[in-house]
Amino acid sequence: MKISIERAALLKAVAQAQSVVERRNTIPILANVLIEAEGDRVTFRATDLDIEVVDRAPAQVERAGATTVNAVTLNEIVRKLPDGALVTLADDGTTGRLAIEAGRSHFQLATLPREDFPVMASADYDTNFAAPAPMLRRLFDKSKFAISTEETRYYLNGVYMHVADGEGGKQLRCVATDGHRLARIDADLPDGAAEMAGVIVPRKTVAELRKLLDDDDAQIAVSVSETKVRFATEDITLTSKVIDGTFPDYTRVIPQNNTKRLEVDAADFAKAVDRVATVSSERSRAVKMQIDEDRLVLSVNAPDAGNAEEELAVAYGDERLEIGFNAKYLLEIAGQVDRENAVFLFNASGDPTLMREGNDESAVYVVMPMRV
Amino acid sequence: MKISIERAALLKAVAQAQSVVERRNTIPILANVLIEAEGDRVTFRATDLDIEVVDRAPAQVERAGATTVNAVTLNEIVRKLPDGALVTLADDGTTGRLAIEAGRSHFQLATLPREDFPVMASADYDTNFAAPAPMLRRLFDKSKFAISTEETRYYLNGVYMHVADGEGGKQLRCVATDGHRLARIDADLPDGAAEMAGVIVPRKTVAELRKLLDDDDAQIAVSVSETKVRFATEDITLTSKVIDGTFPDYTRVIPQNNTKRLEVDAADFAKAVDRVATVSSERSRAVKMQIDEDRLVLSVNAPDAGNAEEELAVAYGDERLEIGFNAKYLLEIAGQVDRENAVFLFNASGDPTLMREGNDESAVYVVMPMRV
Repeated sequence: MKISIERAALLKAVAQAQSVVERRNTIPILANVLIEAEGDRVTFRATDLDIEVVDRAPAQVERAGATTVNAVTLNEIVRKLPDGALVTLADDGTTGRLAIEAGRSHFQLATLPREDFPVMASADYDTNFAAPAPMLRRLFDKSKFAISTEETRYYLNGVYMHVADGEGGKQLRCVATDGHRLARIDADLPDGAAEMAGVIVPRKTVAELRKLLDDDDAQIAVSVSETKVRFATEDITLTSKVIDGTFPDYTRVIPQNNTKRLEVDAADFAKAVDRVATVSSERSRAVKMQIDEDRLVLSVNAPDAGNAEEELAVAYGDERLEIGFNAKYLLEIAGQVDRENAVFLFNASGDPTLMREGNDESAVYVVMPMRV
Repeated sequence: MKISIERAALLKAVAQAQSVVERRNTIPILANVLIEAEGDRVTFRATDLDIEVVDRAPAQVERAGATTVNAVTLNEIVRKLPDGALVTLADDGTTGRLAIEAGRSHFQLATLPREDFPVMASADYDTNFAAPAPMLRRLFDKSKFAISTEETRYYLNGVYMHVADGEGGKQLRCVATDGHRLARIDADLPDGAAEMAGVIVPRKTVAELRKLLDDDDAQIAVSVSETKVRFATEDITLTSKVIDGTFPDYTRVIPQNNTKRLEVDAADFAKAVDRVATVSSERSRAVKMQIDEDRLVLSVNAPDAGNAEEELAVAYGDERLEIGFNAKYLLEIAGQVDRENAVFLFNASGDPTLMREGNDESAVYVVMPMRV
């Protein structure tokens, strides 16, 4: 193999690929990236056996071929090369070394045989559709904070992407929950997605996927089977196993009859919660909300450290209510609100509370109260 | 005690004070800041028993007095208050609570009696002088990287500030070394400093001192005794014990007869060292310099990972030389060069090497070679 490639194109491809590589590997080849050169392009492939990412970049291929080198070292070298450099990668197939040349810099990296690299088996995808990047970004960005980190509840360690009946017909829906809070985000159903089987997209895949979604104009090709999900742009293909489990019936958790409606400026609310939570000990972080006519008092009482209280002007016309929440959960859901005021719908002190942006039903959050 | 103070002034004073507080304290009062209000100002005092910082801020004192509260919590609260807020601190002396009020925010923090707060004994300072902030900044910034972290060699855990004979007479000098590298920085001797006893300023004090030195126009009042050193601006007084030990005779370490002179662009050199070091394993990080007429080749050979080589155009007219260094040490001393080219003076492969900026003798670095 011998190729020449512009440093910026190389860096982009290698950086994306190496990020799925686990830093601590017992299997040496999993620390490597598979470089394959053919035609007028080069591909970089990395995997942790659950996720595989393939990056393509244009290159001048003098001699086609393939090899594998340490992904992190390659990325570091390319990152440190001067901007605008033309980089040559050459492997004669016999020395067990990949030569990297750029200007007066010469590197030789140890290689491992391409045959040893575990390429993920291709799957038959039952569903294929295209979705705009901003749509997927919204679905996953607004739901991922609620993903559970409890390993025993592995079926909650991801975002449940599925088709559901929402406002105005079938929707593409993402749901995540850890039992304490839940996010349910809807988007218009793309053409071809109606028959999609619901899949639980693992946390790490959600994080890697995020890097494909920055371009507002990009269309993402989404493919789904019962065991795998694939997201692809023109240059990058991200394939991931999905979590082999059943996502619980979340619909029962979403309160239908909460009628006590509180409307508040989300930013002011978040800042006030953050302030009063300062005095609480790290562990409990319970914030009490006392709600009266058009008046919300947030308070924290931490016997050792002290106490805090803050008053906010709100819109509320129902009966007086006292209810407590974990400050972190309140901050997280308030942080999701980006367009309108936050609207809370309460039932009673012990019941799950619902939050949404204004009257928009396409993003709904549920948070469990805690006793204060 | 009852005072009103503008949030920005309060934040500045509290932030500086709380930074000396150790996060893990077995003595509760050491987590607190002592607040003392009198006349038209308030002072905030914090200590770790080795360092004491006192910050002064203008305030409207309605009722003079003093109390102590948790420094980190107070700092967090003030930081989160809206910019421009007027903050009231009030303590009635009986409830064991300090009330903090700003707009619609109300806090009450647990207090501990002011009598329990360990105020550092005042010392008789033998030497008092004033030094411009940029001068002290240069002395400590350029030397602190060489401070040892080995606890057994406690007398190297700081910067040795003393008076020494340098180019053109007596100089104020800062020296730090860990046995592998050494930095010796000189500045004009300020009036009144000639009789100063040499003191070892501890690492943490150097870090705290740095925050007093940002203002280019500030004059710093420096006071030195055999056991303590004090740095003061108009608003802040930093007092610290000095390390009770004897700084070794560093002058023997500084080579006098190194004649092989290499001159190189410091930034290019640092980038090249950084690149070739990428392939080396974390631990050894040995970089070999091969120096020939006007030509420097940097190389790293890491049997497992691979090897790297980079060539630089330099000015060198002496005999061919091969010498190895720890990459981190080379990067650190190259990073000190800010005005001219880096000039290396070598003797032989096994001998300490000297580095300075151009022909400037006021900042001199020594680095020990390693076998490669």
